Parts: sequence; C-alpha cells; structure tokens
Amino acid sequence: MAHRVVIALGGNALGKNLPEQMIATRETAVAITDLIEEGYEVVIAHGNGPQVGMIQNAMSELVRSDPDQYVTVPLSVCVAMSQGYIGYDLQNAMREEMLDRGIDVGVATVLTQVEVDPEDPAFLHPTKPIGPFMTKEEAEKLIAERNYDVIEDAGRGYRRVVASPQPVSIIEIQTIKSLVDTNHVVIACGGGGIPVFRTNGHHLKGAAAVIDKDFAAERLAEEVEADTLIILTAVEKAAVHFGKPDQRDLDDLSADEAQKYIDEGEFAPGSMLPKVEAAVRFVRSRPGRRTLITLLEKARDGISGHTGTMIHG
Amino acid sequence: MAHRVVIALGGNALGKNLPEQMIATRETAVAITDLIEEGYEVVIAHGNGPQVGMIQNAMSELVRSDPDQYVTVPLSVCVAMSQGYIGYDLQNAMREEMLDRGIDVGVATVLTQVEVDPEDPAFLHPTKPIGPFMTKEEAEKLIAERNYDVIEDAGRGYRRVVASPQPVSIIEIQTIKSLVDTNHVVIACGGGGIPVFRTNGHHLKGAAAVIDKDFAAERLAEEVEADTLIILTAVEKAAVHFGKPDQRDLDDLSADEAQKYIDEGEFAPGSMLPKVEAAVRFVRSRPGRRTLITLLEKARDGISGHTGTMIHG
Repeated sequence: MAHRVVIALGGNALGKNLPEQMIATRETAVAITDLIEEGYEVVIAHGNGPQVGMIQNAMSELVRSDPDQYVTVPLSVCVAMSQGYIGYDLQNAMREEMLDRGIDVGVATVLTQVEVDPEDPAFLHPTKPIGPFMTKEEAEKLIAERNYDVIEDAGRGYRRVVASPQPVSIIEIQTIKSLVDTNHVVIACGGGGIPVFRTNGHHLKGAAAVIDKDFAAERLAEEVEADTLIILTAVEKAAVHFGKPDQRDLDDLSADEAQKYIDEGEFAPGSMLPKVEAAVRFVRSRPGRRTLITLLEKARDGISGHTGTMIHG
Repeated sequence: MAHRVVIALGGNALGKNLPEQMIATRETAVAITDLIEEGYEVVIAHGNGPQVGMIQNAMSELVRSDPDQYVTVPLSVCVAMSQGYIGYDLQNAMREEMLDRGIDVGVATVLTQVEVDPEDPAFLHPTKPIGPFMTKEEAEKLIAERNYDVIEDAGRGYRRVVASPQPVSIIEIQTIKSLVDTNHVVIACGGGGIPVFRTNGHHLKGAAAVIDKDFAAERLAEEVEADTLIILTAVEKAAVHFGKPDQRDLDDLSADEAQKYIDEGEFAPGSMLPKVEAAVRFVRSRPGRRTLITLLEKARDGISGHTGTMIHG
C-alpha cells in the first residue's frame, strides 16, 4: 500500500493576487508531483489568509457601493468562495504537471467544512484580524449591529478580529477518503476549512472563526490515516534560539523533545509554534507517524531524510 | 441498480442574495430528498446568474476602490467562487434534509470545469450580458485594455457581453462518477461549469464565456450515464402557443414531436427553448432516456408520470 501524505501549504505561499497565485500554484505542483512520482498518495490542505482577505474586501466594497441591495457576507461564506478561488488554480496546476509527466491520477477540490466547538476557549479571546481596515464609525456600526469584536490597529484604523478555535472533525471526511481511495489527489480543508458549529445534532451553522490551516491539516492527516504530515513553510528547518547568534537548526527529533522546546518558548506564536504543535499532535496520534517541516522545494529531499526538520515518535 | 437522475436547477430559483439563497436551498433540498427517498441516485447541476453577477460586481468594486493593488478577476475565476458560494448552502441543505429523514448518503460539491470549443460559432456573436453596468469611459477602457465585447443597454449604461458556447466535455467527470458510485449526492457543473479551452492537448485555460446550465446538465447526464434528466423551471409544463388564448400544455411527447415544435418556433429563446433542446438531445443520446421539465415542487409527481412535461424516445 502506498504511503499516504497530507501536505499543509501556506496561504502566503499562494500569492497575494491572481497572477501571483498562478505562478505559485505551478511551483507548488512541481514539488508535489515529485512526491506523487515517488509513489506517495497526496492530500493537500492550504491556507487562505491573503485570498480570503481579498474576497472580504471585495464584499465590503460591494455593500458600501449599495447598502440597500447587498448584505454583509459572513466569513464562512467568504471561506467557501476562497476554496473555489484557490482550488481552481491549484487543481489545474496539479493536473497539468501530472499529465505532463504521464501520471494518470485525478485531482479534485472538495468544498470542506470543519467542525469547531462553541465552547472552545478561543472564542473568549478573539485575536485573529480579518477583512478590511475600517473607520471608527464603520467599526461602531458593526459592533452595534452585528456584535463583531473589533480592535484598533494603531494608526491604521479599526479591524475585526475573530477566534481561532481547534478543529474537532471534518464534515466531508468520507468524501475525501472515497476520492483518495479511487486514485485522486484531493485538495481539501482550504483556509483551514469552512468553520461550522453543530446544532441539533447534525445541523451545521457557519462560525465566525478562522481555523489554523496547520491544525486543520493535522486533523485531516489523522482522519485519512496518513503516515506523514508535511508542513511547508518559509524556512528549510525549524530552529531553537531562532534569530540569535547561537541559533541551532533542528534535523531530527522526537515528539517529546519537540514538546520540551515548545514548553521552553522556543517557537514564535502564530508562526513556527502552531506548526510544531500540529507536528507533535500528529506524531502522538498513532505509532509510526511522522511530521516533516521544511520548504516547498525541499519536500522531496526532506521526506527521504536529507533535509528539513523531521519529528517522529 | 438504482435509477440515476441529473437535476438542473435554475440560478434564479436559488435567490438573489444570501438570505434568499438559504431559504431557496432548503426548499430545493426537500424536493430532491423526496426523489432520493424513492431510491433515485441524484446528481445536481445548477445555474449561477444572479450569484456570479454579485461576485463580479464585488470584484469590480474592489478594483475601483484600489486600482493599483487589485486586478480584474476573470469570469472563469468568478464562476469558481460562485460554485463555492452556492455549493456550501446547497450541500448543507441537502445534508440536513437527508439526515433529518435518516438517509445515510454523503453530499459533495465538486469544483467543475467544462471544456468549450474556441471554434464554437457562439464566440463570433457574444450575447450574454454579465457583470455590472458601466459608464462609457469604463466600457471604453475595458474594450481597449482587455478586448472585451460591450453593448449599450438603452438608458442603463454599458455592459459586457460574453459568448454562450456548447459544453464539449466535463473535465472532472471521473471524480463525479467516483462519488456517485460511492453513495454520494454530487453537486457539479455549478453555473454551467467553469468554462475552459484545451491548449497543448491537456492544458486548460479559462474562457470568457457562460455555459448554459441546461446544456451542461445534459452533458453531465450523458457522462454519468443517467436515465433521466430533470430540468426544473418556473412552470409546471412546457406549452405550445405559450401565452396565447389557445395555449396548450405539453404532458408527454416524443423527441421528434418536441423537435417539430422547436422548428416551428414554439419556445422562447433564452427561456424554454434551451430546455427543450437539451431535453431532446438527452433523449436522443441513448434509447430509454427521458427528460422531465417541471416545477421544483412537482419533481416527484412528475417523475412518476403524474404531471410535468415528459419527453421520451
């Protein structure tokens, strides 16, 4: 049986606009097809920070242009749109690269919802800024009318903040598994997934939240029974004493060692910290699992043990 | 083996904005789940006229708000976003309705591209208005910079027009089939599909076009080997002498009879005509196939032969 890999791609790595995205998805497709050529089954999760920001800005401009006709589009719906926006380019780049190399594997983008818990403590302290900068008046209107949480960003205006809760389950997991089992590269959990609460048992309701894409990818990797989670980032290896004269890159370490570095505050919150936390969580979820953290272009070398930071049991 | 049905839903029936869409998708889900409860396997195609219009307006406002930062988003990308926007609500409405009735069938929205032929004569005469109304200056800029086709809509300003070519093939057909075969209701070909040209054999390029959703649904019905195509519309039955004192509703007719009425100009272009054309095309594609044209809420009665217009071989 082929080794199954879940890859977490950063939203920033996908470009800030459409021309950048087309170039970025092609480079991404080359690196991922290298893994497929070596026999790995691949599922791709991706971020959507700049992309969902662009969509939210567009929807805000639309409401500003004609407030009588249009209503504010919820964040969950903007995430759904961003999955279409990014998935379209990414699946085509993968399709072309694989066909160019004579690889007969399908590619599918699955609109994915990810369940979050309304009791998640993250909802008590929303911290993730999203959407456009606003005037004080616009901010006060949204606070009054829609109960938004808003912060003032010194000098640049006001911005909405939302919670970043943990993923609980992936609603479309059976769809994703069916497609992996029938010879597909699947693109899923775009932007960390459309965040939803369960209500009345099986009904779902969009949540005003952003799920960290590394944690969503980890959840996905567990649920599709992957062996390896690959978290792509802007550095070749995670490091301790990062940015200091005695910085030391990490090659190969156990989950326990990684947890010790987490506890010692070695990794930056919102940057390397969630990646190492997701890595440890995946390794501990079942014996034999491992997580690679590295650059996109080093993924193939990393999975063979030649570079990157590999965290294992 | 279960009878397989492809349903073509109108974009107008899905509502002009988000609150309308949530109500409309619930009503749609009730009617479609009635068919699933009777044992039909269902694939859903849908239009996106008002929805893609809203997304295009939003993207235009975004460019207007900051022309240095943002570039015009191509129509094909707006269609991809609209598939996410509509699929999210529609798949949830289906999921809830089925679970409420204890039906254990998955639901998946598949981002779908549909190939069109650059030699399609429709490209010589683009007629389908899309996107926002523009000033003369804005229109002239887009004609000069992007080679758009633009018409003047008397009194209301200028509007872009695109071609409406015929669907040639569905790129993600194997994905759709895999999911139908593994017990899924599949939502595919949203907005008629993202229109693409083939270049260099297997590379794809977004086309500035809108594919009629009834023709896309017909293509889909052929490719998933459906027995029945259901085209939902705003009337219970198609009619001849429509709107005249001697109007006669059509209950049950052969493809040859339907073709005769088409040739006699009985059906309105852009309205009932493409539906009857798609119906005839599907019936003639293989013996035993049939097409039902009726109202959403009459779908179950219609498929049992109690109402609607049924076109058969």
